[in-house]
Amino acid sequence: MKTKILVANRGEIAIRTIRAIQELNYDAVAIYETPDRDSRHIRIANEAVWIGDGPRSDYLDIDKVINAAIRTGAVAIHPGYGFLAENPDFARACEDAGIIFIGPPSDVIEKLGNKVMARSIMAEAGIPMVPGTDILPPGEEGLQVALEFGRKYGYPIMLKATAGGGGRGIRRVENETELREQYEIARSEAKAAFNDDSVYLEKVVVQPKHVEVQIIADRDGKTVHLGTRDCSIQRRNQKLVEIAPAFHLTDDQAEDICQTAVKAAKAANYFNAGTVEFLLDRDGKFYFMEINTRLQVEHTVTEMITGIDIVRTQIKLAMGKKLLFDQDDVMLRGHAIEMRINAEDPRNDFMPEGGKTVTVYRSPGGYGVRLDGFCYQGFTIPEVYDSLLVKLTVFGWSWNETVDRLKRCLTNFVIAGPKTTIPFYLNLVNDPDFRAGNFDTSYLDTHQHLFEYEEQKSEVNKLAALIAEIHHKKQNTFAA
Amino acid sequence: MKTKILVANRGEIAIRTIRAIQELNYDAVAIYETPDRDSRHIRIANEAVWIGDGPRSDYLDIDKVINAAIRTGAVAIHPGYGFLAENPDFARACEDAGIIFIGPPSDVIEKLGNKVMARSIMAEAGIPMVPGTDILPPGEEGLQVALEFGRKYGYPIMLKATAGGGGRGIRRVENETELREQYEIARSEAKAAFNDDSVYLEKVVVQPKHVEVQIIADRDGKTVHLGTRDCSIQRRNQKLVEIAPAFHLTDDQAEDICQTAVKAAKAANYFNAGTVEFLLDRDGKFYFMEINTRLQVEHTVTEMITGIDIVRTQIKLAMGKKLLFDQDDVMLRGHAIEMRINAEDPRNDFMPEGGKTVTVYRSPGGYGVRLDGFCYQGFTIPEVYDSLLVKLTVFGWSWNETVDRLKRCLTNFVIAGPKTTIPFYLNLVNDPDFRAGNFDTSYLDTHQHLFEYEEQKSEVNKLAALIAEIHHKKQNTFAA
Repeated sequence: MKTKILVANRGEIAIRTIRAIQELNYDAVAIYETPDRDSRHIRIANEAVWIGDGPRSDYLDIDKVINAAIRTGAVAIHPGYGFLAENPDFARACEDAGIIFIGPPSDVIEKLGNKVMARSIMAEAGIPMVPGTDILPPGEEGLQVALEFGRKYGYPIMLKATAGGGGRGIRRVENETELREQYEIARSEAKAAFNDDSVYLEKVVVQPKHVEVQIIADRDGKTVHLGTRDCSIQRRNQKLVEIAPAFHLTDDQAEDICQTAVKAAKAANYFNAGTVEFLLDRDGKFYFMEINTRLQVEHTVTEMITGIDIVRTQIKLAMGKKLLFDQDDVMLRGHAIEMRINAEDPRNDFMPEGGKTVTVYRSPGGYGVRLDGFCYQGFTIPEVYDSLLVKLTVFGWSWNETVDRLKRCLTNFVIAGPKTTIPFYLNLVNDPDFRAGNFDTSYLDTHQHLFEYEEQKSEVNKLAALIAEIHHKKQNTFAA
Repeated sequence: MKTKILVANRGEIAIRTIRAIQELNYDAVAIYETPDRDSRHIRIANEAVWIGDGPRSDYLDIDKVINAAIRTGAVAIHPGYGFLAENPDFARACEDAGIIFIGPPSDVIEKLGNKVMARSIMAEAGIPMVPGTDILPPGEEGLQVALEFGRKYGYPIMLKATAGGGGRGIRRVENETELREQYEIARSEAKAAFNDDSVYLEKVVVQPKHVEVQIIADRDGKTVHLGTRDCSIQRRNQKLVEIAPAFHLTDDQAEDICQTAVKAAKAANYFNAGTVEFLLDRDGKFYFMEINTRLQVEHTVTEMITGIDIVRTQIKLAMGKKLLFDQDDVMLRGHAIEMRINAEDPRNDFMPEGGKTVTVYRSPGGYGVRLDGFCYQGFTIPEVYDSLLVKLTVFGWSWNETVDRLKRCLTNFVIAGPKTTIPFYLNLVNDPDFRAGNFDTSYLDTHQHLFEYEEQKSEVNKLAALIAEIHHKKQNTFAA
């Protein structure tokens, strides 16, 4: 009987992970909630366990997932991304049950998941951070510290309530006058809202680029990076388009940011695959944001330019192998771009299109094209999960070749039924700023024309138009 | 208005070529016969010209194809493989019409297409050939030459009528006794059949491997190779499975055969992409077979291990660019295997399944997987063309990783409607001899158990079985 590994996830990442498990000659155990009963991840797994009606609650239920692994005899669990992937309690429950968690140890997940603790570890290791203050002293003394900070680091500055979070208790000031005006107001508001008037400052990085570094480490602490990614193109802090490498960096900048990421990972005693995220300002300075202690959606672009199968490596490391390559062995070549084809209506604030059925599905292929999907013709998209249908990842030797390849893929990608992000992406690949690499996290806000397009014709209309066109050509084209 | 390139082909290779054209920012013109009116190659082209009812005759009609190019203003024609691709008259007609033929010049196609002329060019250049004789002198003197040849090169030997061809007028002798017995009989038979009693000898290469080398040359004569391919697994001389590199070769052997291929290409003043085919005997000696003066079906495996887009390169070279890389820049990494997923019934002598409709089509994807296809769910396979549905090409760093990846792809590839070669390939990837690299051109004949399998269950049956299984698990699996 083969060794079994359970995949504690659904959708495309469950499939991606099951593939890697099976390619390593293990059996893959899938879990699913009732709304996923038609999901392709169940069909390709060697075994599937129903864990409840959900939605989402059972995928998030540590006991149920651990029990599914115990009952099926799985020796390891791959958490994918989302759900329990960055939950230290889940990693600890695996450890307690004697099941291998394919990711870092629970204590690493815990300390890196706590922003304050993570910042403190990174500051100690000398990793550059967005400039900020400790809690300001009360009264006039605090204002003086704030004014001094403003003079030193410049504006804008964020006044943050210590007890705030999740976007609450934050006030942005653009200059010294505003700081003087807002300082006491911010304190009173914090007092009213959180019964704690303490505040601190953080410099605002204006229109930053989101640059991240894929790192991978074995249990002996050997830590290598797999280069950079640019994930600046986002909507509401959710990535849409990811690029490897972050090609606007100079070689020195890239080397610097990658070495910093390795240093950050080592400072956290990191094990397995992870991502160190940075903000890059307009002067080319970069600041630590966070370490994601899991596989990222966008790992495919890194796989494309390095040739390294990250999920396969994750599993091998977790199952006890050492990292078989050194930093010198990692070669970055060409460019890769991933676009998340979501069942969403970009013109309607990316409203999800769950509940609809994919009536036609014809995907592109050929040289330099990779698809990671789980939908198929006839598939009804569950309304209760995320709206990612398929990831389109494209490789090219030059940036322009890559964008041109992406364009032909998008042009020939037919998904009928739900609205998708495809027509929006088609505008994007034709946008001169995108083509020139001029994009940062404000890109969507400043490029509203990307949302102007005709809805993709339904396949039926397309076919009708095609038949008419062919008919026309037949009559008008001289056919020898 | 964009420059246009016409694709004088259909099916997957038309699509593959149209993609490369569009990625280079040219417009692609498709041609089609009536049975191909639903073909996807028409839909993805920028323009399509109906050239007649066919079948096949119009794709083979030089005037109609040239006229379609002239009428649409196409400046170049990519012939794909098959149809007019190796027809020197077609290349010449392009030249005469001032249209760029994306391939070698007509005179190169002509001389390499003529086996006698090709052998003579290669012999002169010192390329190793299967040992053979000139026409034998009549009577006892001829027999003595034959006996001498047998002593020098060993048996078996083929006695070939000079006027024969296409498998006629050939007689195989296994030893000296048989040669003495058959010699005069062969002459009399040749006289009776062709009114010409002259015969010659050729050594039989027993259970050879088919090894070929991809070469590419620019107009300045700069010629590089892109490594070897093994295409030994064939049925009735048609390739089914292709592998890059031919991994059983030692590094010295591979270097030797590749340099020989470059020498052969130079001897023929070769331009553009081509393939030099060799037979490799059981002692590791290789012999020139022929040069294919066109793109091969199996070019994808070479693209996988080199990263070089061969079709893109073909077009750029034909459009006047120089080769921008040297031999030293070509790096071979990993292994690639292509399997031709044909609509055929392997258990019924690979009988084509044309005319059937693809009712379910779900393809694999992810890391290291490339698909080159043209069929889709709902597509009815024309009966009048070849039966290739999609090429599955898989990359891996090691041979075993590659085969394991291929296995999971085949396992999860669902094509319902026509019978396909998939279940046969599933047996193949599980065969210890295939896994060990023990295969030559006799592989299918000596591995008849590959044809023993249950027909792939129809998707309806699969779904029914799955639902029953899930139901069973739901009742029996403890779901926390």
